[in-house]
Amino acid sequence: MTTGRGIRLRDVAREAGVHIATASRALNPRTRDRVHPRTAAKVDEAAARLGYEVNLAARTLRTQRSEMVGVLIPDISRPLYPPMMRGIVDVLEQHGYSALLLATDEDEQRERRLVASLRARGVDGFILATAHLRHPLLADAATLGVPTVTLNRTATDASVSSVAPDNEAGMADVATHLVALGHRHIAHVAGPTDTSTGQARAAGLHQALGRLGVTIEPVVDVATDTYSIAEGVRATRRLLMSGAPFTAIVTGNDLLALGALDVLRENRIDCPGQVSVTGFNDLPMMDRVTPALTTVRVPQYEMGRTAARLLVAQLLGEGGEDEASAGPVAVEVRHEVLPVELIVRESTGRPPTNGARRPSGRGRVRAATG
Amino acid sequence: MTTGRGIRLRDVAREAGVHIATASRALNPRTRDRVHPRTAAKVDEAAARLGYEVNLAARTLRTQRSEMVGVLIPDISRPLYPPMMRGIVDVLEQHGYSALLLATDEDEQRERRLVASLRARGVDGFILATAHLRHPLLADAATLGVPTVTLNRTATDASVSSVAPDNEAGMADVATHLVALGHRHIAHVAGPTDTSTGQARAAGLHQALGRLGVTIEPVVDVATDTYSIAEGVRATRRLLMSGAPFTAIVTGNDLLALGALDVLRENRIDCPGQVSVTGFNDLPMMDRVTPALTTVRVPQYEMGRTAARLLVAQLLGEGGEDEASAGPVAVEVRHEVLPVELIVRESTGRPPTNGARRPSGRGRVRAATG
Repeated sequence: MTTGRGIRLRDVAREAGVHIATASRALNPRTRDRVHPRTAAKVDEAAARLGYEVNLAARTLRTQRSEMVGVLIPDISRPLYPPMMRGIVDVLEQHGYSALLLATDEDEQRERRLVASLRARGVDGFILATAHLRHPLLADAATLGVPTVTLNRTATDASVSSVAPDNEAGMADVATHLVALGHRHIAHVAGPTDTSTGQARAAGLHQALGRLGVTIEPVVDVATDTYSIAEGVRATRRLLMSGAPFTAIVTGNDLLALGALDVLRENRIDCPGQVSVTGFNDLPMMDRVTPALTTVRVPQYEMGRTAARLLVAQLLGEGGEDEASAGPVAVEVRHEVLPVELIVRESTGRPPTNGARRPSGRGRVRAATG
Repeated sequence: MTTGRGIRLRDVAREAGVHIATASRALNPRTRDRVHPRTAAKVDEAAARLGYEVNLAARTLRTQRSEMVGVLIPDISRPLYPPMMRGIVDVLEQHGYSALLLATDEDEQRERRLVASLRARGVDGFILATAHLRHPLLADAATLGVPTVTLNRTATDASVSSVAPDNEAGMADVATHLVALGHRHIAHVAGPTDTSTGQARAAGLHQALGRLGVTIEPVVDVATDTYSIAEGVRATRRLLMSGAPFTAIVTGNDLLALGALDVLRENRIDCPGQVSVTGFNDLPMMDRVTPALTTVRVPQYEMGRTAARLLVAQLLGEGGEDEASAGPVAVEVRHEVLPVELIVRESTGRPPTNGARRPSGRGRVRAATG
């Protein structure tokens, strides 16, 4: 029934018959591999016998390190983020770090408040999946020398390391696929223009269609405020009401695509018979919706792992393995772009061969939405 | 460019013209509401002017509190957990607590290691969504007086507070629905028998069918190791190969149901024309799969909120609002059971009226799976 309060590191070292520095290294996941496995096991046993508990709060004060990383995510309950979070947690854990998860709801005030509270806890670094292109917080982090990596979305400020999917290549694949099927009238329901994903995907689509040298109608951009089914519905309704002719809708992400599918269904426009639809991300279940969604697979889990790896490299670079010499030094900034993959399913097909069929569909649309 | 290092609470109090205890209360989210809003704002302004940053690591050593809660989840990338996590984070944040998220992968060794590291950080309490019925860790937590709440799954040990959905009521609704449609031959693909959800749902189904006074075939339990689509596939294949007659499959959760739907599809057995299928949880997108799944909606977000509320109540009860008097005292154990709701969609319907049609479907099944 001993709880180990009052037992100190020197007691463990004495019990194990090793130097106190060896005991310290053995009990720290970050330095444990520099101790012989047999010695480490001996220290573990001694610690267990005495009921020793590492006091990380004391270590934080001593070393100015908490071995905690703050992870800022707009909303963990959106399906894009959980696999990323899992990747982050898996890598951090390997290196003895823990993840503090915060939900920001894209609210910059809330985000500032939460970051201040994480700083107060002495977190060693941040992973931000919330970046907007102009993000005041990132300027702060850079100023104060807190290692930071942006995940999925990047900021205009290139001085912060980042991990992002290859949005341009993904959209190039989408464009090539649709043009090969015969589409020449393509509409675009774009993601938020103040995020790198929204901008890069829109730019990638425009460039790729241009490169394909196909004479096309102007792409109809429908800017949206946020990535959601509701925004996809709103944008697609506006698209239909605009009267612009199209046989395919390229969307900025899967949730926008689901909204587009809903509006087509409510207007009895067959997908893909009359209009093809594409998404981006390949969220869970996109193979099981009706019609199964053609989309671009983003390696969510691997992106989370990569962001955590970049951050850990910065943290270990900073003061290296020696706890005594902690303190910000210049860090190497890296920008990792991860490959994506076009997944062709049932929501894309050839455009209707008979021009007359499409306008009649269009006529019903107007009546239904007017 | 002042970073506020060296600025102390007493400086903030002097600058704001208030007592140091008032400044402390104003800057602590847990006690802020006991200070007049105008005074709190004055303290905020003084803190901002001086660049004061609360040092929570120091506060942790002083008060033996970290204002952090450890959250153990089998795998955040499974769709059941993100909304729960969001609910936890929202409530904790209101009370000035942060959430450390750990992934356990149902691995008890890994869980013990992670919990030890959280204890080393001095976390104030735990929320466990990983409970098995006999869970050694819970005995530990109780012994050591660390406030703990189990979420979703509960343990046999009733001395730990818990939050769970009303599994029995949910299964009673499923049974009533199927029997009202005319089903008399019902199979059951059950969840893991070492979890409370698996056990309670199976028991609820058995009891409800008994109460309905319907002469039915014995329920075919197919125990599964874990809640996954792959286990649903495996269990349903065994069910088909058993040759038992049935017109409906009740499953222990939505992922098992998706596996059942896959096996029916690969055997060209129409759902719901020949066999109805039900799930449990109402995970995201279950309204969009084919056929849209009849299932039991579990209030995931509200469950997360409730677990966090129970834990915070324990934490505040322990030593109350006065930081100086911290220390474990007897805590009130509560077991919250949250109401669930049957959501009828397209995967359930009347059983085939013509008995001959079913065996013919069955015949094809055997050929396909044999």
